[in-house]
Amino acid sequence: METSDQATGAVTMDGVKASVLRKVDELFDEETHFLREMVRRPSLRGETNLVQQFIAKSLRGHGLNVVEEGLDLGKISAMRGYAPVDWSYEGLVNVIGTARAAAPGGRSLILNGHVDVVPIDPIEHWSVDPWGGDVVGNRLYGRGSCDMKGGIAAAVYALRAVQSCGLGLTGEVTIEAVIDEECSGNGTLSAFANGHTADAAIIPEPFPYMVTASTGVIWCRIHIRGRGAHAQSASSAVNPIEKAYVVIKALRELEAELNRPERRHPSFAGVEHPCNVNIGMLHSGTWPSSVPETCTLHVRIGYQPGIAPVEMQERIRQAVLGGAQRDEWLRGTPPHVEFAGFLAEGWLVDTESEIFALVERNHEQLAGAKPSRQPVTGTADNRYFGFAGMPHVGYGPYGELLHAPDEWVDLESVRLVTRVLATTIIDWVGVIS
Amino acid sequence: METSDQATGAVTMDGVKASVLRKVDELFDEETHFLREMVRRPSLRGETNLVQQFIAKSLRGHGLNVVEEGLDLGKISAMRGYAPVDWSYEGLVNVIGTARAAAPGGRSLILNGHVDVVPIDPIEHWSVDPWGGDVVGNRLYGRGSCDMKGGIAAAVYALRAVQSCGLGLTGEVTIEAVIDEECSGNGTLSAFANGHTADAAIIPEPFPYMVTASTGVIWCRIHIRGRGAHAQSASSAVNPIEKAYVVIKALRELEAELNRPERRHPSFAGVEHPCNVNIGMLHSGTWPSSVPETCTLHVRIGYQPGIAPVEMQERIRQAVLGGAQRDEWLRGTPPHVEFAGFLAEGWLVDTESEIFALVERNHEQLAGAKPSRQPVTGTADNRYFGFAGMPHVGYGPYGELLHAPDEWVDLESVRLVTRVLATTIIDWVGVIS
Repeated sequence: METSDQATGAVTMDGVKASVLRKVDELFDEETHFLREMVRRPSLRGETNLVQQFIAKSLRGHGLNVVEEGLDLGKISAMRGYAPVDWSYEGLVNVIGTARAAAPGGRSLILNGHVDVVPIDPIEHWSVDPWGGDVVGNRLYGRGSCDMKGGIAAAVYALRAVQSCGLGLTGEVTIEAVIDEECSGNGTLSAFANGHTADAAIIPEPFPYMVTASTGVIWCRIHIRGRGAHAQSASSAVNPIEKAYVVIKALRELEAELNRPERRHPSFAGVEHPCNVNIGMLHSGTWPSSVPETCTLHVRIGYQPGIAPVEMQERIRQAVLGGAQRDEWLRGTPPHVEFAGFLAEGWLVDTESEIFALVERNHEQLAGAKPSRQPVTGTADNRYFGFAGMPHVGYGPYGELLHAPDEWVDLESVRLVTRVLATTIIDWVGVIS
Repeated sequence: METSDQATGAVTMDGVKASVLRKVDELFDEETHFLREMVRRPSLRGETNLVQQFIAKSLRGHGLNVVEEGLDLGKISAMRGYAPVDWSYEGLVNVIGTARAAAPGGRSLILNGHVDVVPIDPIEHWSVDPWGGDVVGNRLYGRGSCDMKGGIAAAVYALRAVQSCGLGLTGEVTIEAVIDEECSGNGTLSAFANGHTADAAIIPEPFPYMVTASTGVIWCRIHIRGRGAHAQSASSAVNPIEKAYVVIKALRELEAELNRPERRHPSFAGVEHPCNVNIGMLHSGTWPSSVPETCTLHVRIGYQPGIAPVEMQERIRQAVLGGAQRDEWLRGTPPHVEFAGFLAEGWLVDTESEIFALVERNHEQLAGAKPSRQPVTGTADNRYFGFAGMPHVGYGPYGELLHAPDEWVDLESVRLVTRVLATTIIDWVGVIS
């Protein structure tokens, strides 16, 4: 092969890498097309099958051994990190593609990414088609382009570049395209339930740096009851929309408490506001001239590592009910707090692990500068790899406007991450020519 | 006939009334059944045809001349009291049933009622089927039972009782079953556009007293824009749900201003809080982990007679934009205020009119006590009769929980109103045997 040393016939590692990196570039139009085709398949929660079929077909085309696995609540619900949900997984699948080792001696690697994306509303705030995958300059636009189909493309084409050079792997590489990361993590949990493990994992979420730690994330719903009436007697009724603000105030106080510098986990020492409480939804009422009976808040609460999810649930409940005590109506008609979806504890990355060092070093060599190390104020499925005792890395492409209109991913960053992952496969898993 | 004076053969007016009142009682089971059948036909906005077909068929069965008339925006949109809407009237009808005069000499009368009802949400707060029309003791339950199918039943069976006694009318009586009263008033406006007028009108809305005046009512929608983001960076995004509270505060200040005692219209002198601002709907967000981009408020604002709707619209707009000035984000991204639906000015009832005196006196005679006179803090379609220069009355059955779960109407009150309307037909329109 072209990377062999002409004088000796021996293949040098630098030569192998150079060859694979050229292959990444050769395949990059195809990779961009693959990314675009993923973006063009809307994959909101519950609607992930179209993109999963596309990914499964693509991975089979790349010669991987592909299985499509449903999520079995009976299997996962007793496992650590399970998040109770009240939506259905019926008919939905993870796609797991495995490249078998051609020879022994290396280590196995999981490249994990989620295909589910968050809603696009309101569509009129988009200046491009959210499902179009339009490319303008270095940016590829669309819901999920950055979070995280760009990372999936990088993982798939890193492996493809290695294999397209005719190199054999000395360990297994598994591509996991999972669902439900944006709301629970149960997709990756299910992959574990089905026995998929490896010696290390990389999750190329849109973290254009080396993740060191993550906050925990809990979702809760708060149901506030008012006393409905005709608007003509609104002043003697109880409007739950206005009572919701009592609850929001209590949640903001909890947020301030969670962010107090003296409570700061060491991993978040340099972060001004690690714990974000987000009022993601408030819905109340169906008729302007009726005082609503109910108001429902959907809240996402970030909290620092070291607090157990059940403890945090209790603190949330106490904060809401404590706030309610300050309001005469809510004292007698306390809000109902329920939990569904994210029940994720904060996680830490072992920055001393070999896989961490390899990714960091390969990025430095290929980008010309060391990546920064940062904790993240969101979460990712990394925690499940931690539960399994596997070293894991959070590192991926750069983009902006995640969870907002006009989300985009930087294609040069996708290319860079593809190169970093490809060289890391060579280093961690090992190849033979 | 049995009410004739046996000695002379002449029919006394007291005898006629006694006969008609007995007929009301005889027919009351049928009237209750009619009311129940109306309640069992859900007639939310846009879904009124089923009940209208039922009413049309019933009125035809009673020998009335019935027309079903669509609403023609081209006809009504230039008329006083038109409320611009962005919902469709396509395929929807008013039902107008007319009992022709058998002889000349009397005066004509319109009995007007709306068939549209407000939403039932949340259904789980109902202890009965909202569309069941269940009777428990004297109460008939269901959405619209009180507001205002009970009043329609009273109107229909008042006329039916008179006609069932073999009496001929000396003036025309028209039953108008209109749509869109709960959101615009365009149904009654359309009846005027089609030429239906009379010498007086009674609207048996759930006003168990003699209405003297009404507030104006305006609906507006306020669109608040935030800056969406991933919840992980919520603290540096702008959540429009929380900005909505700036707007709500401004609306509450407007409400306080509207209710200031020194601004009180004389008709509302004894009313503590005539002007109700109701935040009927607040909807924002579709995902707990995304900071929403937008928040929409649907607001109903009551205001006193003497203020023109366009002036009130401007005051609402100024209140919202003035409140926005106090917030840094909203100053740069002001809320958008739009108007659709109710654009109703306050109205006064001529308490010196003969029709008013007749209804009041007939109630007193039949109930044994004078009805109270009260202004109402809502509105009703009476204003259109005022625009047409017609004397009009607002008086109808008693019930509770209008626009709320477990709405009910008191059946004895429906019977009383039926009796009052029947005797008022005799007095105002006149009958011959």
